[in-house]
Amino acid sequence: MPFSATPRDPLQHHLDLVITLLEKHKVVEALVHKQESPRQVLVEQLVHRQNLNELRHHLDRLHPADVAHILEALPLHDRLIVWDLVKSEQDGEILLEVSDAVRETLLADMAPQEMVAAAEELDAEEIAELAHDLPAEVVSAIVTRLDERERAQLQAALTFEDDQVGAVMDFDAVRIRSDVRLEVVLRYLRRFDKLPHQTDKLFVVDDDGRLLGALPLENLLLGDADEEVSAVMARELVAFQPEDDAADAAQAFERYDLVSAPVVNGDGLLLGRLTVNTMIDRVRQESEAETFNLAGLNEGEDLFGPVWRSARNRWPWLALNIITAFVASRVIDAFEGSIVQLVALAALMPIVSGIGGNAGTQTATLVIRGLALGQIASARVGALVFKELGIALINGLLWGSMLGLVAYGLYQHVGLGLVMAGAMTLNLLLAASVGLAVPLVMDKLGRDPAYGSSVMLTAVTDAMGFFIFLGLATLFLF
Amino acid sequence: MPFSATPRDPLQHHLDLVITLLEKHKVVEALVHKQESPRQVLVEQLVHRQNLNELRHHLDRLHPADVAHILEALPLHDRLIVWDLVKSEQDGEILLEVSDAVRETLLADMAPQEMVAAAEELDAEEIAELAHDLPAEVVSAIVTRLDERERAQLQAALTFEDDQVGAVMDFDAVRIRSDVRLEVVLRYLRRFDKLPHQTDKLFVVDDDGRLLGALPLENLLLGDADEEVSAVMARELVAFQPEDDAADAAQAFERYDLVSAPVVNGDGLLLGRLTVNTMIDRVRQESEAETFNLAGLNEGEDLFGPVWRSARNRWPWLALNIITAFVASRVIDAFEGSIVQLVALAALMPIVSGIGGNAGTQTATLVIRGLALGQIASARVGALVFKELGIALINGLLWGSMLGLVAYGLYQHVGLGLVMAGAMTLNLLLAASVGLAVPLVMDKLGRDPAYGSSVMLTAVTDAMGFFIFLGLATLFLF
Repeated sequence: MPFSATPRDPLQHHLDLVITLLEKHKVVEALVHKQESPRQVLVEQLVHRQNLNELRHHLDRLHPADVAHILEALPLHDRLIVWDLVKSEQDGEILLEVSDAVRETLLADMAPQEMVAAAEELDAEEIAELAHDLPAEVVSAIVTRLDERERAQLQAALTFEDDQVGAVMDFDAVRIRSDVRLEVVLRYLRRFDKLPHQTDKLFVVDDDGRLLGALPLENLLLGDADEEVSAVMARELVAFQPEDDAADAAQAFERYDLVSAPVVNGDGLLLGRLTVNTMIDRVRQESEAETFNLAGLNEGEDLFGPVWRSARNRWPWLALNIITAFVASRVIDAFEGSIVQLVALAALMPIVSGIGGNAGTQTATLVIRGLALGQIASARVGALVFKELGIALINGLLWGSMLGLVAYGLYQHVGLGLVMAGAMTLNLLLAASVGLAVPLVMDKLGRDPAYGSSVMLTAVTDAMGFFIFLGLATLFLF
Repeated sequence: MPFSATPRDPLQHHLDLVITLLEKHKVVEALVHKQESPRQVLVEQLVHRQNLNELRHHLDRLHPADVAHILEALPLHDRLIVWDLVKSEQDGEILLEVSDAVRETLLADMAPQEMVAAAEELDAEEIAELAHDLPAEVVSAIVTRLDERERAQLQAALTFEDDQVGAVMDFDAVRIRSDVRLEVVLRYLRRFDKLPHQTDKLFVVDDDGRLLGALPLENLLLGDADEEVSAVMARELVAFQPEDDAADAAQAFERYDLVSAPVVNGDGLLLGRLTVNTMIDRVRQESEAETFNLAGLNEGEDLFGPVWRSARNRWPWLALNIITAFVASRVIDAFEGSIVQLVALAALMPIVSGIGGNAGTQTATLVIRGLALGQIASARVGALVFKELGIALINGLLWGSMLGLVAYGLYQHVGLGLVMAGAMTLNLLLAASVGLAVPLVMDKLGRDPAYGSSVMLTAVTDAMGFFIFLGLATLFLF
């Protein structure tokens, strides 16, 4: 068959093969270290070299994205062995494909001149993507090797934030004029060796470079060669400005099924274009950031990173967690007297706080997703508040009563049962309020609504859950 | 300017406009309900109709995806007013674009013949996507109106699971032969009014319909008109089988920057194709499912759904949560005697359990993401276990000692401080193990690794956190 049968299997297959070859290599390496007889060492070094050659040969045939995938899936030591074997022309592409955390480990293994060489294979906007991870002297060495046009492009790309359209656009737009016939366009295209990747339309500009419309390749193929571009070009098209939010652009690509789209400045001047492959990466990154932020992980966490470094990576969140847990602990301490009088309170209190935390997380997750998709208009926050508080009230009364009955059954204490039911209802209402408020406020402040939501949420539902339950108990039972 | 300036702003603008028009409409509606003098009612009914006309006119000009977005962002009552105003030719497209939960509310508002009419505008694979939400009699009415080819396609699409390539492929592949010249292909294409959406390549098949390769439009445009297809076609291409996992296919689209790709059966027969717009939706859905599953939400949760229904939606998770919280509560109850003797235990125990839960969630989130991206080869699970347990040990000893010191400072009790430090370390090790084990086991069992991970995790870290802390205290302090 002329094509690969399935996408995942070959990838897993490559990964397994690399791991097997690495294992072989390590067995030999261990023997060499044992310092056996010189002759034996010689033989084994040959085997060793043969293994590495086989591995190198295998890596040479892989797509840079596949090599990147393999590097992501390997622990640091193995990762660097593989990285050293990769052909240097591929270095740049691979550095673009790997995650930030893995990129850092790879760059730490490279000499400055290797980095400069890797950048030489890349376009200006790709260099811009790597630039903030490279040492300053490497960046300036790269800049001196660029021609004037590329240097201006790099400069332009670097002025935008990572999450702006200007930072993810490329400069490969094919430009044509509106007053020529399709035949001329076809002849013009034949002068290209290849078109920029994911070209589905050509951009029609006036003499000043202002965007007038776009000519889809489809119209070029299906149209009459004698027609003028202006007669068959699309005039209504989705265009972006470099200051636009890249996540919004990704959503527009999704909604309108775009493959490429022009980027223009305020004067309508065509600056570059966005392509769907960049946008699909953006959707993936966005979702990863959301999940990681919710769990209190740094986005840059490396699956197989060094232990000490990863441990430190988690300190800020852990510290915040410990502080909030400590506050909750102080709340309990304040009710020491009540607990000594009725020790059942100690056993029941984590039920109230735990369920509040979970219910609040559900609300916060819904709100975060709604915000990310732009589905929460400020005019409709009221409806959302009403719904989430309604759910909390229903579930609080219903499940709270049930738990109240169970508490009564266990401890034969009517008051305790009533306090349990009341505390559950109040804490669920509180959890829903906090689950709504935290992401909405973070969003209003211009922060990522997922960032730290769950830690703040648990802080409130724990401390307040204990306070409500023990407070009600102290008020009504003693 | 001939193009829309930014993607999000107009969307928000449309949404705001719709909401304003709806508000006007509701004010008039309220007046009509008050039953003022007949003449006043007449006047207001006119205004009322005018408002709705304005709204309808506005909706008519929107892309179906934008109407879908507005429907998602509106509470049920408003949503149905807007839905009734939408042109019926757009119904099918809009139903495809909205989320499952919203689709259900829209279908509940439609008569069977309206559903049949909506389906008439759709392709076979799109009907298949809606089919499981439609009443059986509607589906059979639709089937009778299809021609034989479409019926076979619908049948084929329905035999696959939602998450298989066969369920998301379309049947719009343009097929050409390999032994013709490019000029002939160009002439053939001119007979089309338009090409299937996101066509970036034509598929080259033999007389039996077996896939031989693909001709990118680029090669067609840049190539010499006298060359044969077989000379310029791509023979190495990424192809899928209908049984493949759609999420894996989406990752292949990301990795290899594909716009479209062929789907073939085991004999190499071309069945259809996948396009990047379907795949980008898949990436978004996958990430939504992951986040929602982690939070214990049903994927189908409607942001503005009815309260009672949403409350019930959350019952299964809530019930599971209550059961696990109850178990943790019983653990505490078993140590009642120790707590009465040293009430500080009650105040300190939630610190141990809470931090365990958070650390375990971090580990689980990393593993879930690694599994989703295929980065965890079974050969490397050992390295991951080593890393996560190492982190837990480091952070447990470090932060546990710190908390032990704090506990000592608060209660002037050396033993209590040591128990605190020991319990923290053990519970973090346990949390890391569970955070690793739950998703890995779920994955091995062929289930979604995110599904229920956080609930199971909290169950263990809570109950065992209490057990470890109170158990160590009982063993060493009394």
